[in-house]
Amino acid sequence: MKKISILLVIFSFLISVPVNRADEGMWTFDNPPLKQWKERYNFAPTQEWLDNVRLASVRLNDGGSGGFVSPDGLFVTNQHVANGQLQKVSTKEKDYTKEGFYARTKGDEIKAPDLECNVLVSFENVTERVQSAVKSGASDKEASEQRKAVIAQIEKDSLDQTGLKSDVVSFYSGGEYWLYRNKKYTDIRIVFAAEEQIAFFGGDYDNFTFPRHDLDVTFLRAYENGQPAKTPNFFKWSEKGAVEDEFVLASGSPGSTARLLTVAQLAYQREVGNPLQKQVWTARLNALEKYGKLGDEQHRQASGSIRSFNNSLKRLTGQQDGLLMPRMFAKKEAEEKALKDELAKKPELQKLYAPAWEQISIAYGGLPAMAKRLAFSNLAASRLATIASQIVRYSAEIKKPNDQRYDEFRDSKLESFKFGLLSPAPIYPELEEVTLTAWLDEGLKTLGANDPFIKAALNGATPAEAVKRAVQGTQLKDVAFRKSLLEGGADAIAKSTDPMIVMGRNVEPIIRELRAFNEEKILNVEASAGEKISKARFAVYGKSIAPDANFNLRISYGKVKGYEEDTTLVPYKTTFFGLYDRAESFGEKPPYDLPTRYKEGRDKLDLSTPLNFVYSADTIGGNSGSPVIDRNAELVGLNFDSNIQKLSNRYWYIEENEGSRAVAVHSAGILEALRKLYDAPELVKELTGK
Amino acid sequence: MKKISILLVIFSFLISVPVNRADEGMWTFDNPPLKQWKERYNFAPTQEWLDNVRLASVRLNDGGSGGFVSPDGLFVTNQHVANGQLQKVSTKEKDYTKEGFYARTKGDEIKAPDLECNVLVSFENVTERVQSAVKSGASDKEASEQRKAVIAQIEKDSLDQTGLKSDVVSFYSGGEYWLYRNKKYTDIRIVFAAEEQIAFFGGDYDNFTFPRHDLDVTFLRAYENGQPAKTPNFFKWSEKGAVEDEFVLASGSPGSTARLLTVAQLAYQREVGNPLQKQVWTARLNALEKYGKLGDEQHRQASGSIRSFNNSLKRLTGQQDGLLMPRMFAKKEAEEKALKDELAKKPELQKLYAPAWEQISIAYGGLPAMAKRLAFSNLAASRLATIASQIVRYSAEIKKPNDQRYDEFRDSKLESFKFGLLSPAPIYPELEEVTLTAWLDEGLKTLGANDPFIKAALNGATPAEAVKRAVQGTQLKDVAFRKSLLEGGADAIAKSTDPMIVMGRNVEPIIRELRAFNEEKILNVEASAGEKISKARFAVYGKSIAPDANFNLRISYGKVKGYEEDTTLVPYKTTFFGLYDRAESFGEKPPYDLPTRYKEGRDKLDLSTPLNFVYSADTIGGNSGSPVIDRNAELVGLNFDSNIQKLSNRYWYIEENEGSRAVAVHSAGILEALRKLYDAPELVKELTGK
Repeated sequence: MKKISILLVIFSFLISVPVNRADEGMWTFDNPPLKQWKERYNFAPTQEWLDNVRLASVRLNDGGSGGFVSPDGLFVTNQHVANGQLQKVSTKEKDYTKEGFYARTKGDEIKAPDLECNVLVSFENVTERVQSAVKSGASDKEASEQRKAVIAQIEKDSLDQTGLKSDVVSFYSGGEYWLYRNKKYTDIRIVFAAEEQIAFFGGDYDNFTFPRHDLDVTFLRAYENGQPAKTPNFFKWSEKGAVEDEFVLASGSPGSTARLLTVAQLAYQREVGNPLQKQVWTARLNALEKYGKLGDEQHRQASGSIRSFNNSLKRLTGQQDGLLMPRMFAKKEAEEKALKDELAKKPELQKLYAPAWEQISIAYGGLPAMAKRLAFSNLAASRLATIASQIVRYSAEIKKPNDQRYDEFRDSKLESFKFGLLSPAPIYPELEEVTLTAWLDEGLKTLGANDPFIKAALNGATPAEAVKRAVQGTQLKDVAFRKSLLEGGADAIAKSTDPMIVMGRNVEPIIRELRAFNEEKILNVEASAGEKISKARFAVYGKSIAPDANFNLRISYGKVKGYEEDTTLVPYKTTFFGLYDRAESFGEKPPYDLPTRYKEGRDKLDLSTPLNFVYSADTIGGNSGSPVIDRNAELVGLNFDSNIQKLSNRYWYIEENEGSRAVAVHSAGILEALRKLYDAPELVKELTGK
Repeated sequence: MKKISILLVIFSFLISVPVNRADEGMWTFDNPPLKQWKERYNFAPTQEWLDNVRLASVRLNDGGSGGFVSPDGLFVTNQHVANGQLQKVSTKEKDYTKEGFYARTKGDEIKAPDLECNVLVSFENVTERVQSAVKSGASDKEASEQRKAVIAQIEKDSLDQTGLKSDVVSFYSGGEYWLYRNKKYTDIRIVFAAEEQIAFFGGDYDNFTFPRHDLDVTFLRAYENGQPAKTPNFFKWSEKGAVEDEFVLASGSPGSTARLLTVAQLAYQREVGNPLQKQVWTARLNALEKYGKLGDEQHRQASGSIRSFNNSLKRLTGQQDGLLMPRMFAKKEAEEKALKDELAKKPELQKLYAPAWEQISIAYGGLPAMAKRLAFSNLAASRLATIASQIVRYSAEIKKPNDQRYDEFRDSKLESFKFGLLSPAPIYPELEEVTLTAWLDEGLKTLGANDPFIKAALNGATPAEAVKRAVQGTQLKDVAFRKSLLEGGADAIAKSTDPMIVMGRNVEPIIRELRAFNEEKILNVEASAGEKISKARFAVYGKSIAPDANFNLRISYGKVKGYEEDTTLVPYKTTFFGLYDRAESFGEKPPYDLPTRYKEGRDKLDLSTPLNFVYSADTIGGNSGSPVIDRNAELVGLNFDSNIQKLSNRYWYIEENEGSRAVAVHSAGILEALRKLYDAPELVKELTGK
């Protein structure tokens, strides 16, 4: 009864719903912005349209998005999303990242070693069930345990009933919980990849900029039971592609935004979190670059990660620049104040929800003192060491009841966990040694020799000695060995003398202790307080704001449109003319050199064909590879980046009139290249029927 | 004796000469930066090289630069420099600005109605003579009169002796005086002009930006006695043109810099001068745009001025943005303080020079109160009214002895004055009416109805009435009438009932009164104090800094080099590929549309030919059309703009590592267009011998 009366209060209170800003939001498919679409773009999709788009959208668990483009499992994504797999199938002799790839027949397609792809088959609101499992008067810790238990149960029931990968996902900082059921594909094969030099033309310099000239494209094919998957939901390929002022949508899995954070949380990011993240990534990048300079083969091994860290650092810099802008930060403070002020008008709600901000603020007060330990107490810089840590952790967790394990070891997630752990992807011990040594050097420098993690990891040796011993002595490179350890159980792990397992075992108590701190002092508080703030927001504004991104499927929308920059105009698209201009203007000096195919094939191209374009949809990292579609759900482009004006949109939506844009490869440009440069009539036929 | 002892003090005092910054300076030919050239670029030109470059350089008194490119008087400049003349020879039926022009034979060349061009034939330091003419103890006003008298004498003597246009020019705010003798060409004919649409591709948006794609080129020919002038000093046209990292020089006549101003003078610009200038230009631009919208022909008549005011306003905005940057302004304050501090170490100099800053500061204290009157009390918005004012003024000045006239009416300048006044260039009364009415409206709004100038100009009528009467009733459109008035003397002017002459006569006392205020209270103080500051600067730093630009010949230098912008690289050049990309990317919407010749001729071009490029030389408005030459004095490009990073270089030099660049048309791009698009083998042969 009390709940109902509050609900009444809530709905009588929806007075000051803010007008949703143009093209804002990465929307879940249960709550698409139908009103905005209708009003602004006269677009009113049917449920069938929405279902089709959802079922044609693919999440790549390497961290990106894609879309089916034929009924036979063929899907498209970015070269930079698939690059990890391309590297894993490459060798010193055959470098698919560099040379690109095209399988003229299905028999030529190459299996990706450890790529899992998901399609969101169904979803169900379980908020009531999760939230009501928390007993009245429960502490934050008890509440967390109670939520965990019910979530584990929901996931297990769903998995048992449907066989689908079932995850309960939190939205709005715990304001809602949804059961997401994904169809999982783990047999993915590579059909086509553009050469990195054209996929990433302009390199890190041009990354996050526009005008842009990248054919950042890969085609993959999902298989089931050894046969191309049947995918009746797919996007028809538009030959014409995006045109100026056109309404378009992007369907994909944006990784993470932080727009609903409190001012205290944002201030922490600005003062501590981001600078520390920068230190971590810079240290890892430096190690990789050092290694990459040892020779061509070393460069090949490291280049994917170098590209990725450069990308992360450039993005982080843009995000932090945003946080450091007084004007932008003041906006967040004003937003928070406005919500609190509205709340203050309703004593019932005020009493329930208002303390939440202070709770978070207090919790974060203790975080800076622990931040460096939390950031550096891990072995993630090395794949072998990560495997060791995971095996050690698995052996301890698997003994516990399902609902008491760390999230990632719940029954519903074990298949995916093992798929990754037992990947046959190559491991390069020399690279591992360099990166892990550099990581522990940085940790030692940052935390000091007496830090528990450092002491446990080094065990009296120098980083170089400890790492050399572990990397050179470990058998974890061997997948069968990993498997035997997994199957041997806790006892086998405890007794193992594999030096990397020993290192993993030694640091595990420290990592667990820090994880416990983080869960108890931060995450549990955030979950409880976040739920309150979320309810306060719903009460005041309704569900008019999209939840923060969390690498689940979303739909964004906007217009194909250029913008002003400095004093001039940036056009909505580039053409192949622009590609050759930029290459020529830099005298083809890397990263502005062209693959031979492009140099020799220039005269075959219609150079006026669009190559890249920009549009105003609200996207973020994870949207890489998102199909950009028109109102008929035809694929008119392939999202691959954002411009620099948009980078701080992790923390807030940036209006399109500030020049923030998503960047996509144009569907006509892809076809033109496939037809004229890659001699790929089979692929073109599968895409267009011609 | 006293002078000599001070000189000794000065030279013993040269302790803290600041290292000259890379590529800084618009240098006079008497003091080229030989040391920097030698050290940085291993360039040590002979005197013959310097003389040749000087004698091959042309100043266009419409406000720009050019360079001879054949021994037969052919010289090159920008289309935007020559555009005033192109407009003056255009008609409703034949629009050379729009359509471009090419004279296949000399007989086809079109005479420019009123373009005067100068070549600096010789120069002579007359500092000692000018400065010593000022009697000890003279007031600023007396000093000014004494300087004026000696300058008039020097100029007259030179004119009488050489027949050359002879001007005594002040440098370093009066720190030096030089007699410049210019050979004057007034029979200039148009040989070739690119269509404005390609000369100004991207319009005001792309103005002051890079990458850029403009063929901003016109060829003119100087005639003497009805024959092509013999110009043995000319720049050989480089077929290859500028290459990356090449050392280049630009020889031209930069209009005006204000780098040696005191902080008080700069603060005035920032607070009063620039905002007022913006108001003036905006008012004039608005009137022109309004008129231009009346129809195609009206647009044609106004378009040159619209382009020019847009250009001025965009530049002013950039300059003012620079002044408003605390970081930049603080630098100026620090510079001034450093000079004063050095001075304070030498009591003899301190006593002589230190009061100068305060004197300027006091003088400027009275300026804001008068600034609006000074800005708006003129009739410059109308060509007819300007002619009237000039005739009225001439008639009064010409009666005075040579050395007591306003500078512009000294004997040595009368020929040029009359050449301009008696120009047969068309006048459009409807345009005149609109612009002058708008100007007086703005003046009325700004100064009020009781302002002496407004009262005198309107004489009780509204601006619209007064202007209509004057424009419609005047005979000044008729060159013969102007001539008769000039020859009729003061009496004829005083009796004239021509309504525009009446308006000019009515406002003349007000204009004279304000001019007297400005001369006595500001200019004379600046001249005296400026000389002191200049001497202080020489004493501390020597002559290591170039004097402020004053539309006399200078030589600048730098490197052909791209730069970083935001997070990416801007290449040193663009190509024809880029032109077609930009046109295509905007769907050829103006100002990104192409002349038909370019659309139809695309396949004839080698699109990889360089079109524009950037280089690091220190240039400013007035350098438009400057030949960009290599160390062999071959023309590798044609300067036509600066990028936005460079705009505030009016007030200070901006280091090349801040991305400031001059922008030029590439000599190879010009040839490619002449050969492939314009079918101009005669011109190409004259340039290249082929």
